[in-house]
Amino acid sequence: MRTQYCGHLNKAHVGQEVSLCGWVNRRRDLGGLIFIDMRDREGLVQVVIDPDMGDVYEQANKLRNEFCLTIRGEVRARPESQINSDMATGEVEVVAKGLEIINRSAPMPIDFNQFISEEQRLKYRYLDLRRPEMSDRIKLRAKATSFVRRFLDDNDFLDIETPVLTKATPEGARDYLVPSRVHKGNFYALPQSPQLFKQLLMMSGFDRYYQIVKCFRDEDLRADRQPEFTQIDIETSFMSADQVREVTEQLIRDMWQSLLNVDLGAFPTMKYEEAMRRFGSDKPDLRNPLEIVDVADIVKDVEFKVFSGPANDEKGRVAVIRVPGGASLSRKQIDEYTHFVGIYGAKGLAWMKVNDRDAGFDGIQSPVAKFLNAEVVESILSRTEAQTGDIILFGADKKSVVTEALGALRVKLGLDLELTDTQAWAPLWVIDFPMFEEDDEGNLHAMHHPFTAPTDVTPEELVVNPAAANSNAYDMVINGYEVGGGSVRIHNPEMQAAVFETLGIDEQEQRKKFGFLLDALQYGTPPHAGLAFGMDRLVMLLSGTENIRDVIAFPKTTAAACLMTDAPSLANDAALEELALSITAAAEQNEHSE
Amino acid sequence: MRTQYCGHLNKAHVGQEVSLCGWVNRRRDLGGLIFIDMRDREGLVQVVIDPDMGDVYEQANKLRNEFCLTIRGEVRARPESQINSDMATGEVEVVAKGLEIINRSAPMPIDFNQFISEEQRLKYRYLDLRRPEMSDRIKLRAKATSFVRRFLDDNDFLDIETPVLTKATPEGARDYLVPSRVHKGNFYALPQSPQLFKQLLMMSGFDRYYQIVKCFRDEDLRADRQPEFTQIDIETSFMSADQVREVTEQLIRDMWQSLLNVDLGAFPTMKYEEAMRRFGSDKPDLRNPLEIVDVADIVKDVEFKVFSGPANDEKGRVAVIRVPGGASLSRKQIDEYTHFVGIYGAKGLAWMKVNDRDAGFDGIQSPVAKFLNAEVVESILSRTEAQTGDIILFGADKKSVVTEALGALRVKLGLDLELTDTQAWAPLWVIDFPMFEEDDEGNLHAMHHPFTAPTDVTPEELVVNPAAANSNAYDMVINGYEVGGGSVRIHNPEMQAAVFETLGIDEQEQRKKFGFLLDALQYGTPPHAGLAFGMDRLVMLLSGTENIRDVIAFPKTTAAACLMTDAPSLANDAALEELALSITAAAEQNEHSE
Repeated sequence: MRTQYCGHLNKAHVGQEVSLCGWVNRRRDLGGLIFIDMRDREGLVQVVIDPDMGDVYEQANKLRNEFCLTIRGEVRARPESQINSDMATGEVEVVAKGLEIINRSAPMPIDFNQFISEEQRLKYRYLDLRRPEMSDRIKLRAKATSFVRRFLDDNDFLDIETPVLTKATPEGARDYLVPSRVHKGNFYALPQSPQLFKQLLMMSGFDRYYQIVKCFRDEDLRADRQPEFTQIDIETSFMSADQVREVTEQLIRDMWQSLLNVDLGAFPTMKYEEAMRRFGSDKPDLRNPLEIVDVADIVKDVEFKVFSGPANDEKGRVAVIRVPGGASLSRKQIDEYTHFVGIYGAKGLAWMKVNDRDAGFDGIQSPVAKFLNAEVVESILSRTEAQTGDIILFGADKKSVVTEALGALRVKLGLDLELTDTQAWAPLWVIDFPMFEEDDEGNLHAMHHPFTAPTDVTPEELVVNPAAANSNAYDMVINGYEVGGGSVRIHNPEMQAAVFETLGIDEQEQRKKFGFLLDALQYGTPPHAGLAFGMDRLVMLLSGTENIRDVIAFPKTTAAACLMTDAPSLANDAALEELALSITAAAEQNEHSE
Repeated sequence: MRTQYCGHLNKAHVGQEVSLCGWVNRRRDLGGLIFIDMRDREGLVQVVIDPDMGDVYEQANKLRNEFCLTIRGEVRARPESQINSDMATGEVEVVAKGLEIINRSAPMPIDFNQFISEEQRLKYRYLDLRRPEMSDRIKLRAKATSFVRRFLDDNDFLDIETPVLTKATPEGARDYLVPSRVHKGNFYALPQSPQLFKQLLMMSGFDRYYQIVKCFRDEDLRADRQPEFTQIDIETSFMSADQVREVTEQLIRDMWQSLLNVDLGAFPTMKYEEAMRRFGSDKPDLRNPLEIVDVADIVKDVEFKVFSGPANDEKGRVAVIRVPGGASLSRKQIDEYTHFVGIYGAKGLAWMKVNDRDAGFDGIQSPVAKFLNAEVVESILSRTEAQTGDIILFGADKKSVVTEALGALRVKLGLDLELTDTQAWAPLWVIDFPMFEEDDEGNLHAMHHPFTAPTDVTPEELVVNPAAANSNAYDMVINGYEVGGGSVRIHNPEMQAAVFETLGIDEQEQRKKFGFLLDALQYGTPPHAGLAFGMDRLVMLLSGTENIRDVIAFPKTTAAACLMTDAPSLANDAALEELALSITAAAEQNEHSE
């Protein structure tokens, strides 16, 4: 039916007869001629229909937007004056000799030339995906997927499928459950990641595994999360953390080079501690030049308790961000930033404008100046390398509050003041994470997951002082997004049991949940390490959107619903009966209250 | 850590120093030396440790089966007399200069040199997968997957992901349901196929789509079925059925060529009606030379009512299979086949041995001879081209019974008598299926699925006489397995509604279940057609096993359980409460009765 895609036509085809299949993107009538912008997945081309063409013209006259048609015609060069340089095929047009309407279209229910709410776009997703902007993203995703597979195939990785109907995982609270009809009252869980299966594959000797695989998490969704998401899942045996980082960094660098023609260069490596200290984040956006600078040593003897208190407290922190040119911030703007850091628990936002650097103490303007002295101010100005016209913003509180608040403030200031170069690329590795983190109730949680190997510690030492242990884990960060994370895994059963014990999982529970893993670890388990990339997020970055739904053909809303098909929906009673399930009153209430 | 895989070493490496990582496949002590067959994913190599090597020897002496180790050593050629031609690396061995035990192994819980039940193999799947026979299949699967992707990428197909958490499908009764926590009392369904999504992608204009994708069916399992299975899912726009068959046939032919070095040749095409008539199956194994031959016209006037009854009944059938050399079948064997066809509803199995073809009627031996005459017998012998030494087996009953019984008998005889060439390959296309089939209650069901386009019929005609409609569907069959199936799809809303109406789905239900599809069909839907291959089945054929679980890394049992992880399992009460679900008494009873 088709000899060429519309979007592929160019001057080389001039004089050729072609057959095209596609849609009416736009129709114009001009000087008796009909002009059709005809669209297929590869782009647009202009088709001209002459009134002399009889039947063909009559058919063309019936065409409306989004009619599906096929045409036969000759490619000709456009006259110099009519070349459309905004259009890839703008140097040519096709003169129709035959035209068949394959399918008519009702008028579009939404007008893509107007603003459309995302709700409408999701309801009519099949139409939304016709927009070149959207279809380009889906095509880029296909290219990226294909690139990843070829790279990993060529590097001896084996694509091995792991089950989707699995057993509940440690992070069980967020598992999607699937009731079994055969084993009534029992449930499968959809995997949050194939973590244990890929480790078992290493124990089986497959050495290098990968899979581009759907994973599932039933959690309260944020803007950039989806209940089902896609991971590039990788695991290797006999490779060090460095080697895993090397090959996966190469994959990403090659992908950016191939798809965007961008050289990401070598990725710097930064310890977790440094990332948190300097940037207040374990996924710092290094395109942002602002940094958090500690000044506790400078202010520890000042009379101002707001500063000296935390400065003398082991769990406190006093730090600043110097904002170049920030002296021009208005009082109102500063108030807004004060409100902003309040979200993160900061009780205020002390500031110091540097109106004249050369004048030292006399050149600053600050509500807290009266609590400080010239020496303290000079030390702060000097350490932050402040210049005339800058502002210095203070955080003084519990360490976690200061770090989080200034980390968030840094990101916001970078964007608000256009200090962050949003056209640049800033990849890095963050390494040396703590093994565990403590929640507010003092319970320990695995910072990555409980299969991550701690660094330089015996099982006995780990149990005695878990808080001191670092893990051999690593995250890949690009432009402030964590795009991948991984670790060296535990490969002996004693260490695995010690980690479970530290997490408060007793022996009985260990056997029940992970018996098969503890068993498997006994049979000559190789050292192994791996990583998983978030495919959706990578494509988001590659395609320059900040909306993860834009890189998924049929996404769900943040409320985990599909507006097109109306999923999830009520099940019929027969199905529930077969599953031996009934819906409790809680659901009814929920239903009515919605 | 590793310079080479064990299994890659050959004479070209002689003299080189190598580092290997792997497992002790076997250890032997011979003449003071220790010999280790060291294994990694690529194969085995012999490592020799000399008692002069001090520490290295001491370490080697601790080695037991399945210990994980790394060695450093020099590759040397084996003396002529010690070359092991059964081993890919049998011309060389590695003389150890360094050896490190990475991880010890407990004694194997199962002995792979003995017969092991599949139950044990599934429980210790991570060990079962160490067997080269198993790991070779998983590696072949990875190769096949990779081959398919490259072929389709190279043919402009776009890999597009469709959702796993979807709305219940028409075949809803077999859907796995997933309760939603956010929308309590509501359920997602796991897809039995991405059928509607791939059609919507065609409506969006993606033109050529593919996906290697997990699908799910909660049904009573047969030996070659799994609750989750993998499809190579393909859809195209503006392509005819012929063109879809051409490109997908090329894919399979190229795959066989590339992976097995086998040329499948051009696939013959056979109509459904012919396949059922000649082979009693819509997936005939053409390696089997036996055929079903109709003889109703010959016996319609005989006195024997068992034959003449069905021969004169429009819904009856009388047919025979001639089995070359079958005259040697014993009375007991014939009784067994009589019992066998009884499973399919046949009330008996009349037979006729051809002891002397030249003697005509006098040369046959048959319990029914007395009811026939010389002319009838001669006609049957002549039509079946019977030879001395053959047996002719009769089926006479309702058409469906004869077809099914003789179809099954044909397969069984082919294997029992070694008439089927099990080393050969016999691919074909079966086409021109009926649109609908009738169940015992007289209800119509879509033979493929309700989105399949009927051939040469208007919506109005379809509704009036649905039984007469053929569909534009096609199945690819290899060696008696249906490996793929597809069709041209309906691309106008009136025809789609007519099919739903024929299937007894009223307008309200159509809107509720398929409203989005009927809507989407209105906006210039292109003609589209596609196909889905069963990936597991293809790999089963490629790897020469008849057990589908052998080509899946972590399969489930026929009772849909994972014996390794013990899935499915009980959910905790908190999880159920969050989902607003409770388990009914039916499950409790089921639990106790197990």
